[in-house]
Amino acid sequence: MVKSVKITDTTFRDAHQSLMATRLRLSDMLPIAEKMDEVGFYSMEVWGGATFDSCIRFLNEDPWERLRELKKKITETPLQMLLRGQNLVGYRHYSDDVVEKFVKKSVENGIDIIRIFDALNDVRNLEYPIKVAVECGAHVQGAISYTTSPVHTIDQYIELARNFEEHKCDSICIKDMAGLLTPFDAKELIKRLKEEVSIPIDLHSHCTAGIAPMTYITSVEAGIDILNCAISPLSMGTSQPPIESMVASLKDTEYDTGLNLVALTEIRDYFDEIRNKYKYLINPISERVDARILRYQVPGGMLSNLVSQLKEQGAIDKFEEVLNEIPNVRKDLGYPPLVTPTSQIVGTQAVMNVLTGERYRIITNEVSNYVRGYYGKAPASIDRDLIKRVLKTGEKRIECRPADLLEPEYEKRAKEAKEKGLIRNEKYEVEDILTYTLYPQVAVKFLRGEAEEEPIPEEKEVSKFSE
Amino acid sequence: MVKSVKITDTTFRDAHQSLMATRLRLSDMLPIAEKMDEVGFYSMEVWGGATFDSCIRFLNEDPWERLRELKKKITETPLQMLLRGQNLVGYRHYSDDVVEKFVKKSVENGIDIIRIFDALNDVRNLEYPIKVAVECGAHVQGAISYTTSPVHTIDQYIELARNFEEHKCDSICIKDMAGLLTPFDAKELIKRLKEEVSIPIDLHSHCTAGIAPMTYITSVEAGIDILNCAISPLSMGTSQPPIESMVASLKDTEYDTGLNLVALTEIRDYFDEIRNKYKYLINPISERVDARILRYQVPGGMLSNLVSQLKEQGAIDKFEEVLNEIPNVRKDLGYPPLVTPTSQIVGTQAVMNVLTGERYRIITNEVSNYVRGYYGKAPASIDRDLIKRVLKTGEKRIECRPADLLEPEYEKRAKEAKEKGLIRNEKYEVEDILTYTLYPQVAVKFLRGEAEEEPIPEEKEVSKFSE
Ligand SMILES: [Co+2]
Ligand SMILES: [Co+2]
Repeated sequence: MVKSVKITDTTFRDAHQSLMATRLRLSDMLPIAEKMDEVGFYSMEVWGGATFDSCIRFLNEDPWERLRELKKKITETPLQMLLRGQNLVGYRHYSDDVVEKFVKKSVENGIDIIRIFDALNDVRNLEYPIKVAVECGAHVQGAISYTTSPVHTIDQYIELARNFEEHKCDSICIKDMAGLLTPFDAKELIKRLKEEVSIPIDLHSHCTAGIAPMTYITSVEAGIDILNCAISPLSMGTSQPPIESMVASLKDTEYDTGLNLVALTEIRDYFDEIRNKYKYLINPISERVDARILRYQVPGGMLSNLVSQLKEQGAIDKFEEVLNEIPNVRKDLGYPPLVTPTSQIVGTQAVMNVLTGERYRIITNEVSNYVRGYYGKAPASIDRDLIKRVLKTGEKRIECRPADLLEPEYEKRAKEAKEKGLIRNEKYEVEDILTYTLYPQVAVKFLRGEAEEEPIPEEKEVSKFSE
Repeated sequence: MVKSVKITDTTFRDAHQSLMATRLRLSDMLPIAEKMDEVGFYSMEVWGGATFDSCIRFLNEDPWERLRELKKKITETPLQMLLRGQNLVGYRHYSDDVVEKFVKKSVENGIDIIRIFDALNDVRNLEYPIKVAVECGAHVQGAISYTTSPVHTIDQYIELARNFEEHKCDSICIKDMAGLLTPFDAKELIKRLKEEVSIPIDLHSHCTAGIAPMTYITSVEAGIDILNCAISPLSMGTSQPPIESMVASLKDTEYDTGLNLVALTEIRDYFDEIRNKYKYLINPISERVDARILRYQVPGGMLSNLVSQLKEQGAIDKFEEVLNEIPNVRKDLGYPPLVTPTSQIVGTQAVMNVLTGERYRIITNEVSNYVRGYYGKAPASIDRDLIKRVLKTGEKRIECRPADLLEPEYEKRAKEAKEKGLIRNEKYEVEDILTYTLYPQVAVKFLRGEAEEEPIPEEKEVSKFSE
C-alpha cells in the first residue's frame, strides 16, 4: 500500500520567524514563489503567526497585500496560515465580531488552510474561530499545543482532537512548538489519534532540541499524513527539519512524498543566497541544537527574546538563572504550554523574579490577567499564594469564556479608523480597519504611510545577539 | 524487554575531524576528559583517522603521547580508534610488518577498540590488520564502507559482515561516512545483519545530508546495538548526530541509553566554549544540511577540501562543475565508496577533468595506481578507455592482494630513523619509528623538534573558507 506523506513548506512563515525574527520580505519571496508552487507541496504556510505584526512594525509591508501577491504567484499550492485562536495574529483576545471579520478576510485574500491553536488548549478559545473558518469554506486544522508536564496526558490530547473533529475541523495538527515531542511518544500519540479520529494528522515540530527529525520519521511509521518542513538553508536550529532530507529519506519507500529533489535543489540554491543576505539577523543561539530545551521547555523564538530582554537590562549574566526560573513560573501558573502568548508571559515574569531578587515582588499585568482567568483555563491549578497576591479582597477569578466578557469592537474601531483617515483604499477598507483593530498604535503609523522599512543589518548587531 | 542502546562518543576524533579540520588540541581535551569518562559511554573514539597526521603536521603533538595522556584520564571508558585497513592512518598501503607493529603499539599505548575499514571493502586489505588486532586482544570492529551505487547490494554487505565474523571480529560497523544511508534502507540492512551475524552492530553516520538522525532512530527500532554521536556543540553538519538529543529521545523507552542528561549538559557547556575558540576553523559549508550529497556522494571533509583546492587554483567558480564531475569519475572507477583515500582520488581527478577542460587529459598518479589495482579490487568494472589510457603496452593490472607486492619496510625505516637521529626516547623508540615510517617527510621535522604548533585562527581565513 502506498501511503504518500504530504509536506507542508513553512519557509515563508515559521522558518524565517524562527530563525530570522520574521524579517523575510515579500520582495525576497516573490522571485522564487512560482518555482515553489511547482514542487507539489501539500500546502505552503505563508501567513499568520508573527508575520502580520512584523510586516507593519518592521517592514512597512501591508500583510494583506503580501497575501494577495503570494496568491497571484502560488496558484496551485494551497496557502496556509497560523491563527492564534481568539487571539488571531495578536497577543490578546479579540471580540467575536473582530474574529469573524478577520477570518473571513483572510480567506477572501487567499488563505486556503487555517491552522488554529490556543496556548492553553482551552476549547472555549477555539470554538468560535473554528466555526467561522468552517463557514468560510476554509480547510480548518485544529491544533493541539503539545507540551509535557506532570498534568498533561495523551488522553487529554485525544479529547481535544475529538473535539476538533466534532467541530468539523478537516485535519488535526500536533503543534510541537518547542520541539519536545520524542520519537516514541510521537508514535504512541499518533497511533492513538489515528484510532480515535478519522481526519488527517499533521505534525509540526522544531529542531531546537535536535529531536524533531527523529520524531518525524517515527511519525511516518505511525501513519502521520502531513509533515511540516523548511527548505534546507532555512531549516534546523529553531526551525523545521529540512524538506530535501525528508524527501530523500522517504524516496522509493511506501511513504514517498513524490516531490522532485532536483527542483528542490534549485530552490535550495536561491535560499542559500537569502540566508546569506539575512545572516546577521540569525542569532547563533537559534542555529544550534540545544537539548536544554527539554528541561526549560523554552521555544526557540522565546530564547532569543530572553537574550534581548536581558541585554537591554544589562543583565545577560543572569541568563542561566532566568532559564532555571522558567520551569518554576510555569509550574506556578499550572503548566501552560509555552507558546505565544504564554511563552512571553512566563518568560517576562521569570526575568522579573530574577532581576528583582524576589519572586513575584513585581507581578506583570499579563500574569495578573492570566491568574484571573482572562487567558482561559490553566491546565492545572495555579499556585495558591500567587492567586492570593493577585486577587483583590473579595475578587474572584472568571469562570466563563474570556471572550464573552468582550464588547463587540469592530464598529467602534471602524469609526475611529475613518476619523483618523487611516483608510487608504475603499476596496480594502475592512482589511485596513482590521489592521488598525489588531495593532492600534503601530497601525496608525503604518496606515498613514509614515512607517519605514528597517534596513537588513549589514553586520552583526552585537547588542542584540552576541552570546 | 529492555534493549539499552549504547553510545560511542566521537567528540575527540570524528567530530572535530569533520567540523574543524582535525585541529582540536590535547590541551583542550584533557580538562573535560574525566567528566566524559563518567558519562558511561560504550566507548570514546579518540584516535586514528586523520588525527595522527594532524598531530604531527599542524599541532606539534605526539599522537602516541596524546593517546597515553587520554588513557590516564579516561580509565573506565574503552578508547576506540579508526584504522584504514592496510593504510593504517596514512594514505597508502603499508607492508605487513609495519601493520603488525602499528596495531600492537596502538593497543599497548591505550586503544581498546579498533574499527577497521577499507575504502573498497576489499577483504584482502582487511584480513591482515584484523588478524593482528585480534591477536593483540583488542576488541576488533570490522567496518563496512557504506555507499549506494548501481552495483552495491545488501547481499554484498552481508557477505562482508559474515567475513568479519569468520575472522573473529567482535562487532560490525556500518560506516556511513557521507551520511547516505536512509532510514528505511538502514532498517532493512540492520535487520538482515541481525539475522545473518551474531555479533553486535554499530552504526556510524554523518549529518551532512540531514538524514542521519532519522536513520539512527529507525536503526534503533531495527535492533542496532551501538550508535556514534558527538556532544551537541560539535554535532550536526558534517559531524555526527548530537548525543544529548539521542539520549533524550530514547529516555524511558525500552532503548534507554542510561546516560545522564545533566552530566551531559555540563560537558555541553564546556564544548560550547571550545566551539567558540575554534570557530574560525569551522567552514560554514560543514555546518549546513546539504542534500546535494545524495547526488554527489561527497563526504563532508571532502567538500571542504574541494573548496580549498579550487580556491588555491583561483577556480572556485568551477565548484558546481566539479561537483557534477565527481559522480562521473566515480562511475569510471567502478563505483568506489568515497572515503579516505578514494574520496581524495576521485575528487582530485574530478578537479583535473574540469580545470584542464578535457576529461583525463591529465591522469593523477593515484588514479593510475587505482586503475592498475594497487588499491585493491574496484566494486565494478573500471571504464575500458580509462584502463587503456593508463596501462602501458603489454602491461596488466595486478590481481593479487596489493600488500603482497610490498617488501617488509620496518627494519629499513628503523635504521634510517636512527641514522637521522629521530629517536627521542628509547622507551618509545618503536612509536617514533612508526611515526617516521608513516609520514617520512613531516615526521622528520616533528621528531627533530623543529615543528611548530599552528595558531588557532583568530579571524576568518577568507582564502580558505569563504563561499
Ligand atoms: Co512552529
Ligand atoms: Co566518520
